[in-house]
Amino acid sequence: MALGIGDDGAVIDPDPAMQLVVATDTLVESVHFPADASAEQIATRALCVNLSDMAAMGARPKWFTLALTIPSDKANAQWLGDFSRGLAEVAAEFDIALVGGDTTAGPLTISITLMAEVPTGKALKRSGAKVGDGIYVTGHLGDGAAALALITDNTDIKDVSGYLLERFYRPRPMVEEGIALRDIASACIDISDGLIADLEHICKASGVSAKLYTENLPIHPDMAEMSSQHCVSWALSGGDDYQLCFTVPPSQKKKIDHFVRLGELKATLVGHIEPDKESRELVTVDGQSATKKNRGYDHFGQ
Amino acid sequence: MALGIGDDGAVIDPDPAMQLVVATDTLVESVHFPADASAEQIATRALCVNLSDMAAMGARPKWFTLALTIPSDKANAQWLGDFSRGLAEVAAEFDIALVGGDTTAGPLTISITLMAEVPTGKALKRSGAKVGDGIYVTGHLGDGAAALALITDNTDIKDVSGYLLERFYRPRPMVEEGIALRDIASACIDISDGLIADLEHICKASGVSAKLYTENLPIHPDMAEMSSQHCVSWALSGGDDYQLCFTVPPSQKKKIDHFVRLGELKATLVGHIEPDKESRELVTVDGQSATKKNRGYDHFGQ
Repeated sequence: MALGIGDDGAVIDPDPAMQLVVATDTLVESVHFPADASAEQIATRALCVNLSDMAAMGARPKWFTLALTIPSDKANAQWLGDFSRGLAEVAAEFDIALVGGDTTAGPLTISITLMAEVPTGKALKRSGAKVGDGIYVTGHLGDGAAALALITDNTDIKDVSGYLLERFYRPRPMVEEGIALRDIASACIDISDGLIADLEHICKASGVSAKLYTENLPIHPDMAEMSSQHCVSWALSGGDDYQLCFTVPPSQKKKIDHFVRLGELKATLVGHIEPDKESRELVTVDGQSATKKNRGYDHFGQ
Repeated sequence: MALGIGDDGAVIDPDPAMQLVVATDTLVESVHFPADASAEQIATRALCVNLSDMAAMGARPKWFTLALTIPSDKANAQWLGDFSRGLAEVAAEFDIALVGGDTTAGPLTISITLMAEVPTGKALKRSGAKVGDGIYVTGHLGDGAAALALITDNTDIKDVSGYLLERFYRPRPMVEEGIALRDIASACIDISDGLIADLEHICKASGVSAKLYTENLPIHPDMAEMSSQHCVSWALSGGDDYQLCFTVPPSQKKKIDHFVRLGELKATLVGHIEPDKESRELVTVDGQSATKKNRGYDHFGQ
């Protein structure tokens, strides 16, 4: 960075061979995280959620700005120190620099704008899916929804290892996976609102429809054991997983399968792209309608 | 813009010959604007305040993202339409593009991240002021504080023409003025917290002190007539003027005077840069201490 925090703006030097990708995400207390979340948890989640957007674009995150609005009971050295530590840890892990910020008094709101670089013309979009493409997801699905259920006391499952809380407050953004997919995927999105809802975004942008098969869903064995009753529904429509959902043309299928076999990419084929049916159901699950119930997603709703 | 709103991020193409300047500013209801401000007023003020940061850097604004948090009573077509219209008007006037956004439910908060371009190495900073430089301000001072007094019913002045409210909700960012100063000013800042407070930032960053002369302050004749009692204090320590305060080396003084004479730049010499006195008083006014009273600045304080 050519000039840091302290002036009215930060001066940065983007790589002239790259395009810049910009995205903004806001987290509001009691909407995106519970009121009893720690400062560090809030910070790590806010930054990871933003990094996930860049992963979905196949872009390498570089710089971010932070707009932090905090109520007076949190405007103390302890809270701000914890928040800064959480932010700094994630920033260090992904090698990104905080280049500007504004701290104001008010109800707790964290808004982050992230800037990333991608070689010109290589950004992954939602609009490139074609009939015949395979639909893949990275990692496991349903962890975010299970964590949400746990946090809101809406489940009887036990998070013995703290694995689920970790997944919620520090979801692992699939940045390297997104970059690896630049020349392979025809469309990509991160799963923040649930697989069905986010796949619908790809379908709308690409003018296609999609078929999902529940038997293929990558559900973690522990999760299946903990709650066989909910895990499929969580995997289909739970939010906050921050895995990538991407489509792959038949010509690239061998490459993906090769990466997966080598352990370089953890991804699972969960469905196929079909022609646009000109109906309202863009996504079907095991040949049946993805009902409203499965598409809905509740945060800590006010 | 190469790819617009709809994907997880926007892809933009910065000019390879330019550096990018980034700044974030947040406006919170009841802190930065009164609860009865209209949607359009809030939008125009939010964007103008952010544009002013770029003016202070001598950068040309190009792109912005918006993080809008709104309570349910405002999440309707009327309010959002008015807000968008206000935003679009200012964006059109300054030829900048909205490239991303996030709308969430919660207490009214508007956070804007603005990106601007400046030729490499040409950004104006706070740190370049040298002993002997003249201190200039653009336009008139005190309008913002007078408007604030008016809005908070803290004055007996009358805003017959609506001039003051216009100045508050739609301060004119000095973007072209900032660009014109790139090769002339040694340091620059926008006056958001008051002339004394912002000049102190220049002094701290540059390792100097400053002398101001009240007889030189550019106070609008109408303002002087409306409130001769307050106008000097408002000009010295009132916030929200969004004029530029900049320093000019003796070698560039002729150039500035020439621009001013031609009417190409409306600016007034208000003081001089002096050596760092190693005291706590970085700024003196008419040879006297700039008291705490003059440095303070109240928003709609919670």
